[in-house]
Amino acid sequence: MPHTQTHYDVIVVGAGPAGYISAIRCAQLGFKTVCIDNGHNKKGQRSLGGAHLNAGCIASIALLESSKIYYLLTHAINEHGIFADNISLDIGQAVARKDQIIETFEGKITDLFIHHGIEYIHAKAKLLNARQVEVISHDCPAPFVLEGKHIILATGSSPTGLACAPIDGEFIIDTAIALNLNAVPDTLAIIGGGVMGLELGGIWNRFGAKTILLEAQDRFLSLADHDIARAAYQIYSDQGIDIRLGARVISAKVHNNKVTLRYQDQHGTHSLSVDKLIVASGRKPNTENLAAPEANLLLDENGFVHVDENCRTNLPGVYAIGDLTVLGPMLAHKGIEEGLFVAEQITGMHNLINYDALPSVIYTDPEIAWVGQTEQALRAIGEPIKVGIFPLTANLRAQAEGQQHTESMVKIIAHAETDTILGVHIMGTHASEILAEAVLAMEFSASSEDLAQTIHAHPTFSETLHEAALALKNRALHLPL
Amino acid sequence: MPHTQTHYDVIVVGAGPAGYISAIRCAQLGFKTVCIDNGHNKKGQRSLGGAHLNAGCIASIALLESSKIYYLLTHAINEHGIFADNISLDIGQAVARKDQIIETFEGKITDLFIHHGIEYIHAKAKLLNARQVEVISHDCPAPFVLEGKHIILATGSSPTGLACAPIDGEFIIDTAIALNLNAVPDTLAIIGGGVMGLELGGIWNRFGAKTILLEAQDRFLSLADHDIARAAYQIYSDQGIDIRLGARVISAKVHNNKVTLRYQDQHGTHSLSVDKLIVASGRKPNTENLAAPEANLLLDENGFVHVDENCRTNLPGVYAIGDLTVLGPMLAHKGIEEGLFVAEQITGMHNLINYDALPSVIYTDPEIAWVGQTEQALRAIGEPIKVGIFPLTANLRAQAEGQQHTESMVKIIAHAETDTILGVHIMGTHASEILAEAVLAMEFSASSEDLAQTIHAHPTFSETLHEAALALKNRALHLPL
Repeated sequence: MPHTQTHYDVIVVGAGPAGYISAIRCAQLGFKTVCIDNGHNKKGQRSLGGAHLNAGCIASIALLESSKIYYLLTHAINEHGIFADNISLDIGQAVARKDQIIETFEGKITDLFIHHGIEYIHAKAKLLNARQVEVISHDCPAPFVLEGKHIILATGSSPTGLACAPIDGEFIIDTAIALNLNAVPDTLAIIGGGVMGLELGGIWNRFGAKTILLEAQDRFLSLADHDIARAAYQIYSDQGIDIRLGARVISAKVHNNKVTLRYQDQHGTHSLSVDKLIVASGRKPNTENLAAPEANLLLDENGFVHVDENCRTNLPGVYAIGDLTVLGPMLAHKGIEEGLFVAEQITGMHNLINYDALPSVIYTDPEIAWVGQTEQALRAIGEPIKVGIFPLTANLRAQAEGQQHTESMVKIIAHAETDTILGVHIMGTHASEILAEAVLAMEFSASSEDLAQTIHAHPTFSETLHEAALALKNRALHLPL
Repeated sequence: MPHTQTHYDVIVVGAGPAGYISAIRCAQLGFKTVCIDNGHNKKGQRSLGGAHLNAGCIASIALLESSKIYYLLTHAINEHGIFADNISLDIGQAVARKDQIIETFEGKITDLFIHHGIEYIHAKAKLLNARQVEVISHDCPAPFVLEGKHIILATGSSPTGLACAPIDGEFIIDTAIALNLNAVPDTLAIIGGGVMGLELGGIWNRFGAKTILLEAQDRFLSLADHDIARAAYQIYSDQGIDIRLGARVISAKVHNNKVTLRYQDQHGTHSLSVDKLIVASGRKPNTENLAAPEANLLLDENGFVHVDENCRTNLPGVYAIGDLTVLGPMLAHKGIEEGLFVAEQITGMHNLINYDALPSVIYTDPEIAWVGQTEQALRAIGEPIKVGIFPLTANLRAQAEGQQHTESMVKIIAHAETDTILGVHIMGTHASEILAEAVLAMEFSASSEDLAQTIHAHPTFSETLHEAALALKNRALHLPL
């Protein structure tokens, strides 16, 4: 069917989590909505869901699940009285399972678009001005122009490369390719100890790759609370990941099917030979060619779209959400929340995004999750605070399920005078799920006493939040001794 | 060291979760506290922690974990590209692991008592009057009397027997013995589709026993919301448990190492032959010989201790908490909360227990968890309500982890006019953890809109709560299609 419609209430550019959710909410609110997206899956087929679904967090979690099972089988079944011989791994099948999950979910997004009457155009889009978008589709002989009363930019982000380690797609690979290896490398190096580097390191290390993580900064996980970062460093190291800090890569060269890597740290220059090298050095906003120069869309010096606290760009009626804006961290649910917010803002609803209650999660195993501020940030501004810490090893549910790490913990920080919760930081099993209660608590400006006075089902991991709140006033019940 | 002290601020009778937590809180508040407990582990050694630790929920969760791993290995690893031969099970080792977890935790309670200066007497205790307890210890030649300004009764509950199926400890067994089998029975019947029956059925069914559950009531899980009960029935049945409703057992006889069971249902009388029969027909309060007749402690007709909403018995200064009171369901965290409450009440703090925000959990896999009222109970009193339901199969995290049941769901019920949350019901993976946020929401008298407006990390199971809140106003984002 030829595309004849040219005027829309809302044009959404990008169908990652921020974009597709925003399109759905716009349609729910009665807007005639089109979503233009140029994404594709690893087979090169058009695919909704963005990098998050196809080459990011979802793909990573699906593969992590398989790697956890493999690790369990090869390391921890005997204590349960379970024995097996000839344990083998077909990594192709694990990747195929991951691809199937992606494909199924991509189909669901397509169904949701149809259900809500959202038009989907597989094409590149370029913002021409505050009302017009140029659409460049492989399926059409020439570009065409769509008009929208409102335009929502949500093109996401993509991996930044490193000049010293150019991606060849086979030996030196990016984070997307690293989710699609057809064999487990004997040795693996990862440049970058950020979210993707840690997630990928955990997966391939569990599958049996000897994994070395090179982080340029001297401090591990500098974004996280220091106690959590220390715990994470210890736990990942115990799992077998060789983390090297302050390690700045100078060069990476492929020779005889091996990558030879040179890096500098405070002790000098080192050389390393591995089977694969993953470059996980960060992500950049997808703003190249997003807008025609004459549109005058304001970007910052790193290419992020400039927005105000209402996700408004400098162009009237043009919004930007998710990874490509200057606002907040690159997290799927940040984009989702902004997508909902913008859709509702267009109808005149006056919600606000509470960025202070925005959870952060690193989907390793165990997970890291936090909301609010770190102890260090609060001390730096001289805020009077109290801290309560409770280790997962003192939690009965964690003990019954087994395999808990000594360093796993829940940490609650509250204002010393008002008792208002200012930050909650978790390193441990189910951290992202346990955190949900903490996020709601912060949404309600709750005190640590509120958490202490709330009944928590026994035995659950969520009791660690209760105990940390009690610990904050020196009355933990299952005090670690 | 001989026991010379005879006067205490607080005497706690019973060291299950309600009792030991109450003793700890009393000690934290500065009271000279003694805890008298007659419990023992399965080897007959003195053991703190009560039935909950030794023969209940904790033991059950520890064994469930092993059974889940065994089931995973024998049923669901190939999709992950993982293969193994000669998978075998040494059930003795799984039970030994469970025992080790119990022993470790029992040691921690002992350490907590020592740390807090709580005296522990392994003995039977009998309330003589509002100030005195008689202590009958194996270690002492004669009973002796302790005096307490306050006495907290926390002796818990134990399995009720069934006259038609007398426990012989080998073929017809109670729920405690059922956690210590040294071989997986080929066929297993369970009388009683309550919490323990379901938990045990799930464990032994996973370990390979052909499991039949006989429930006398016509309705399955009558306590739970009907949608949840229906979902649970389907999921447990799909897992292989043969659930027979309206099945009233008439007799159970052992012959030739088999149990022959006769039961009636609406179709007539049936006979069944199994290797083991578990009687899980419910629990009764441990109030026999708890008080001397002249103490005049008021019990109800079923032997539960009568208490007011402040856990006060009819005797001044004597409190009762946990399973043995008329108040609330038999749940560990109910007893824990009452234990904390009574300790604080004694110091003059005026907290209140919010029984409306008391979570209920059934620790099967997947779990069932709820807080607040059921849709049926609310409709019965004519409350105007709105309901939001969201299935776990539409949740991306659940999909990435796999093995989600079509029937798993989160259900939120809110007042139709005020939007206040009146009940949250979950059947699905991590239900007890996801529920924690719902409990806090109810503690804050939150509206469904509050949950809808709170950011939930993506992808997490906790998003199902968010989506159910959105579904309540017909705006679920990942609408199941």
